[in-house]
This record gives sequence, C-alpha cells and structure tokens, in this order.
Amino acid sequence: MKRNTPYSTACAEFLKRVHDQHPLIHHITNFVVMNDTANATLALGALPVMAHAKEEVAEMVSAAGALVLNPGTLSPEWVEAMLIAGRRANQLGVPIVYDPVGVGATELRNETGRRLLDSLQLAVVRGNSGEVGSLAGMGGAVKGVESVAGVSDPVRVARELASKYHTVVAITGQRDILSDGERVLGVDNGHPMLKTITGTGCMATTAVAVFCAVDSDYLIASTAALACYGLAAQNAARRAHGPGTFRSALLDALYQLTPEQAEAGARIVELA
Amino acid sequence: MKRNTPYSTACAEFLKRVHDQHPLIHHITNFVVMNDTANATLALGALPVMAHAKEEVAEMVSAAGALVLNPGTLSPEWVEAMLIAGRRANQLGVPIVYDPVGVGATELRNETGRRLLDSLQLAVVRGNSGEVGSLAGMGGAVKGVESVAGVSDPVRVARELASKYHTVVAITGQRDILSDGERVLGVDNGHPMLKTITGTGCMATTAVAVFCAVDSDYLIASTAALACYGLAAQNAARRAHGPGTFRSALLDALYQLTPEQAEAGARIVELA
Amino acid sequence: MKRNTPYSTACAEFLKRVHDQHPLIHHITNFVVMNDTANATLALGALPVMAHAKEEVAEMVSAAGALVLNPGTLSPEWVEAMLIAGRRANQLGVPIVYDPVGVGATELRNETGRRLLDSLQLAVVRGNSGEVGSLAGMGGAVKGVESVAGVSDPVRVARELASKYHTVVAITGQRDILSDGERVLGVDNGHPMLKTITGTGCMATTAVAVFCAVDSDYLIASTAALACYGLAAQNAARRAHGPGTFRSALLDALYQLTPEQAEAGARIVELA
Repeated sequence: MKRNTPYSTACAEFLKRVHDQHPLIHHITNFVVMNDTANATLALGALPVMAHAKEEVAEMVSAAGALVLNPGTLSPEWVEAMLIAGRRANQLGVPIVYDPVGVGATELRNETGRRLLDSLQLAVVRGNSGEVGSLAGMGGAVKGVESVAGVSDPVRVARELASKYHTVVAITGQRDILSDGERVLGVDNGHPMLKTITGTGCMATTAVAVFCAVDSDYLIASTAALACYGLAAQNAARRAHGPGTFRSALLDALYQLTPEQAEAGARIVELA
Repeated sequence: MKRNTPYSTACAEFLKRVHDQHPLIHHITNFVVMNDTANATLALGALPVMAHAKEEVAEMVSAAGALVLNPGTLSPEWVEAMLIAGRRANQLGVPIVYDPVGVGATELRNETGRRLLDSLQLAVVRGNSGEVGSLAGMGGAVKGVESVAGVSDPVRVARELASKYHTVVAITGQRDILSDGERVLGVDNGHPMLKTITGTGCMATTAVAVFCAVDSDYLIASTAALACYGLAAQNAARRAHGPGTFRSALLDALYQLTPEQAEAGARIVELA
Repeated sequence: MKRNTPYSTACAEFLKRVHDQHPLIHHITNFVVMNDTANATLALGALPVMAHAKEEVAEMVSAAGALVLNPGTLSPEWVEAMLIAGRRANQLGVPIVYDPVGVGATELRNETGRRLLDSLQLAVVRGNSGEVGSLAGMGGAVKGVESVAGVSDPVRVARELASKYHTVVAITGQRDILSDGERVLGVDNGHPMLKTITGTGCMATTAVAVFCAVDSDYLIASTAALACYGLAAQNAARRAHGPGTFRSALLDALYQLTPEQAEAGARIVELA
C-alpha cells in the first residue's frame, strides 16, 4: 500500500478550512440519526441545520455550504421536500450529498433513489455496498438498511454509476471505494466498531458533505472526509468498552482530530 | 426464590440464536427512542430498521423476524401504517410486539390501544403497570408516559388481558410479570437506574421483539429477553455515574452479555 | 459581581420542589433533541412527555405543569398542534415556554414566531441572541439555528420584547440576560462546551419549563433554571474529553445537582 502524500495533505487542508469557515450543512435526513449527524457536523467544526418543511427548504439551503439528502425514514412528503431543496441547491451550486439508505430493501426506496438521481445533479452518492449495488442495478442485497451481500466488483460499480450520473460514488466498507467515473481511490481508515451502532453510515455522509462544502473537487473532498472520519473511529475505538462508549468517543475523536493528525493518519490509495 | 434452570437455559440459548441469526426487527416507533432502540437492537446482535411509510411497511415487514409497534409519539397516519404492517405480519406469521406507551393518558392513546388489540393478533404486549392496567380497564394511572399508580394485582391483570386477546402480556417494573393467559412468570433482574432515562421501557420492548424473532414460545422468549435486558442494566449500573453514563453503559452491557452470563445471572420465577 | 442571596436561595428551593413534585413537562419539540430534552427533564427530577397529535395535545397539556413549544424542525401541522396545546394551556394557566429555534433563518420560522407570540400568552421566550433579536426585529443574525451575530444591547432587547408581549425573555449566551419587561437579571453560569453539541439551547428551554412548573414568578424561575443548568454544564465539563463525553456528563451532572450545590454555585446578578 502506497501513502499518497497529496491526498493526505488534502485531508489536513480541508479540515483546516472547515475549522476556519464553519460551513452550514442543511440536512433533510432520517429521524433515527438527526441528533448524531448534527453532533458529528458540530464536532467536525461545521454548523448543522435540520429542516424539512416544503415551505422553508429552498430558503434554508440558500444559506448552506452543502445539502444532505438522507431518506432513511422516508415518506412521500419528505421526498418532495428533498426535490425542492435539491433543485434550489442545483441552481445555486450548493453540492448535494445523497445517502441511499435501505435502497434494495423496498420498492419505495428504489424508486426514491431513481427519482433523486434522475431529477437532481448530485455531487456525491455515499452508501454501503448493498445499497449502491442495488441503486446501480449491479448486484448487492440489503436487509432493512444493512448490506447483507456486497457487489462483487465495487471498483467497477462505483466507476460506472459515477460515470452514468456525472457524480462521485463512495461505497463504504472495510476499504472505502470512491470514483468520479474516471479516477478511483480507496480509503483504508475505519474500524469494525462502526458497525455496532446505528447512524455511522449517515455520519460518514455528513462528513462527506462537510468537506464538499469547502472544496469543489468532490472526489478528493469525499475521500479526505472518509479518511478523517475513519481515523476518528480508530481513535475512538481505543477508548471504548462497547458501542455506547464508542458512540460518545467517536464525537470526542471527531472534535479532537487536528489537521496534522489527519495528514499523518490518512490511508488513501489510488486504485485506478 | 427458586432458580428455574430451564428458563435460564432459554436465556442463553435464545441469545446465542440472536447472535447467530441476526434477525431483522422492523420498528414503527416513536421519535424519542428511535436511536436508542436501533442501538439496543444492534447491541443484542440483531438488525434494526425503522420504516413508517404506508407505501413500504408491508414490504419491509416481509423481511423481518419481528415487528415492534410503539405509538409513543403517535399521529393517525402512523397508526394506519402500524395496522398495514401488522396485518401483513399476521399473514406471514411475523410476531408483533406492541408497546402501549402512554395508554391511560389520553383518549387517542386508549383508542389506539383498543384498535391495535382488536385488529391484530399480537404476540406480546409490553408496558408498565399503569399502561397495561389502563389498557385492560383494570386500574392503574398514567401521567404522560409514566405509571403513577400501578395495578393492585398485576398477576391477575396480566393473565386476564393475555387470555382475552390470546397474547402474552408483560408488565415491567421492579419485578416483571409475564403471562400467556395460563402460565405466569416473574423476572427479578433490572436496576432502578432504568427509571432515570427515557426509552428504557421501549428498549425492553425491543429486546422482547428480538427474542420473539428466534423462538415461537413468546412467553418464554419475552421472559428471557427481559431477564437479559435487566441483567445488562445491572451490569451497566456498576459503571455509571448518573443517567448519561448509564445510557452509554447499557448499550455496552447489552453488547457484552454472553449466553453464559445470561444463564448464570437470570432471575426467573414461576408465579403460577 | 455581586452574589445575590435571594436568587441563590430560589435556585435551591425550586430544585427541591421539582425533586418533590415531579411535574409533567409536555413538549411539542423538534426531532433532533427529543431524546436529549426528555432525558434532561428526567435528570432534573421532572417527567417528560412528547406528544404532537392535534387529537391529543389539549388533553395531554391538561395534566402538565408546563408546556414547551420548540419548532426547531417545524411543519405547518405541528404549528397547528402547538396553537391548540397553547390555547388550552392558557385557559388552564399552564405556563408556556417558547424556543424560537432558527427564527431569523427563514420566513416560515419568522412567521411562526410572530403567530405564537400574537396568539398565545407565553410565560417565557428562551433563545440565543440572534434568534431573539430577529424575533424582536431589533438586530441579530441567524445561520441555520446558530446566532452568527448577536444584538448590540441584549438588556434593551430582552426588556422591550418582554414588555411588549407581557412575557419573560431569556437570551442565553456567555452571560444569560433575562427580563420581565422591568427587572433585568444576568446569569454567569455555563461553559463553552455547551456550544459543541446540539440541543443544549433546547435543554436550557426545558430546564426553564421545569422550574416554571413549580413557581409562578417566571422571571425568577427562569433565572434559577439557567443558573442550575449552567452549573451542571460547568460540572460536566470537568469530566468530559470532548462533546460526546460532555453530552453524557451533562445528564449525569443535572441528575447529581443538589439544592445545596445550586445555592452555592449560582452566579446571578441584578442588571436593572
């Protein structure tokens, strides 16, 4: 495995920008993780706002540095609000990060995924292997919101889906795989404890949005975000006795992560 | 108090099955505890999914090992979704665990309780003494979602309500009382710290659903679940300095509980 | 800074009453903080209930000692429920505490603030400097739900807004400023860590509601609540390694705070 210095430097640089600029991250997200993702946003140095009313989302997103669309506990009204906010974000150039929670589990989730992909220009799609595979129609299986069977060739899936929709696709797992349709990067940060609590995928999506708010190379921004997030998880695992204390330690670790530590600890590889 | 070896063995056996099978637990639950109950599900070794849209609940429950109906922050639309999911669960033989949160506090909650009992075949009803007494029309008083006056004879209330609706009734408190209308069991695990944080009743309901997903004797499964949950609370209390650290420690303890510890620590008594 | 013994005594006295009376605090609040504010209510010794259905809020608030209206993730239906609950609270003399989350950020939030102020007799309005300034039309700027520019003269803003609506206004910040339109008090308890997690403003509002449930001098009750809450934050910060452990420690500290500690630690000053 090769250490890629330019990517490590990006981790440090982007984290520093977040600490300096405190971008607002507008979330239209699920009920389960609202508190966790708001706290993750704050811990990274950005500002969260959760707002879903059709009457205000277009105005709210106008002040935001990035928009998170996470239909994890979706209903048709919320999807409408996501489309309204997303169209305004596209007009303004605010990057949209989409988390296809549970795509593959129900037809409503599959259809919602297709609608968001078709209606909006997404900056990044971040999901697990089963979700992204289902979204791409290229394999993978999802039980509830859990990937129970990954895609066989994540590099190909990420690259093809990214290419088709002119977006960045990030498949998170033991090794995170990211592609903008041409370049493919891998991130080897992270920790198995992330699988023991809910919302850790959603917090990864939030981290991606936070970094996309400070740099318009969304592939590099997403990669740096996942490296920083995974590194914080590694630090948190050292202080945890189980999932409850890991959850607290993860926020502590995101808050404590310095640009210098990010640069030293990031494990990013070029895969194509 | 007599140690009942067959029940203790069931605790160990069912916990082992959960660890092996990772059943999916579909929750239609309240906003306050979604995160906590998802994390409790994971900590026990099962998989949570929270989904409430009428458009997807029937499909989602088809993949589940159990369904939790918890109208703690109810609205009419959510109750409709509960009925749709519940009817499909009944068709498929997926056990339904109902938590009558706040029944006794408002007419909407009373009426919802009656509708769920009348419309669905419930595997288990798990509530506090005031809630179950109110549901049974046999005494008990509820203030908000808190039992402020228990029923005078919980054994009789549990047995009669269970008999009337062909379900298992679990009244949790200092001693948990469970009945399937004939047998009555008591669980003496648990800890007073459980009353210091919100959602501990809802997490008990989740534990019941997790165990009902791996065994069709719902009385024994529920009893084993409450013993394991109470035992984890005892372990958590030893590491806690107050309700905040208890909340983290409870997830740690649920995660760390082994079948062997469950067998050794369960305190289950036959009451009738 | 002068120690005001009568105010310190009120802190101890009101906290003791909460511990004795366990008032029910009905919240119609936002999805992000429901769990945190329920737990803060319990930690202070009161009982929380979260209920938002139009069909039950009037009945639920009838049993409550105070009502919290917190439209942090508002939609028009929820605002209707707030008005129904609020009107019933006014009829019954149940104090209403309003948290103008994100007022200043969108027209929907501004309009909702005006509607609640105009339609209901509020006991207390508790917000940050940007929110209260926006509500009063007297300066301040809000980004999402964060005050990014405070009002230049918080004493004047609090006094004028309180006078206009016959309410108590509490502007929280490094020094909390409270006024009933005539008297103005300051609270110097608190800790910078409160800004590192979401919902700490909402929990301050909950603390105010808890104390207003046990004394009808809402200015003194609010002041005592913010002193106790700030003191707990100071105690929590000593045990925290970052925002995650601070969040747990804050609940522990609210739970552990004794009337004697409140009396000794409260830092309340008369400003006018």
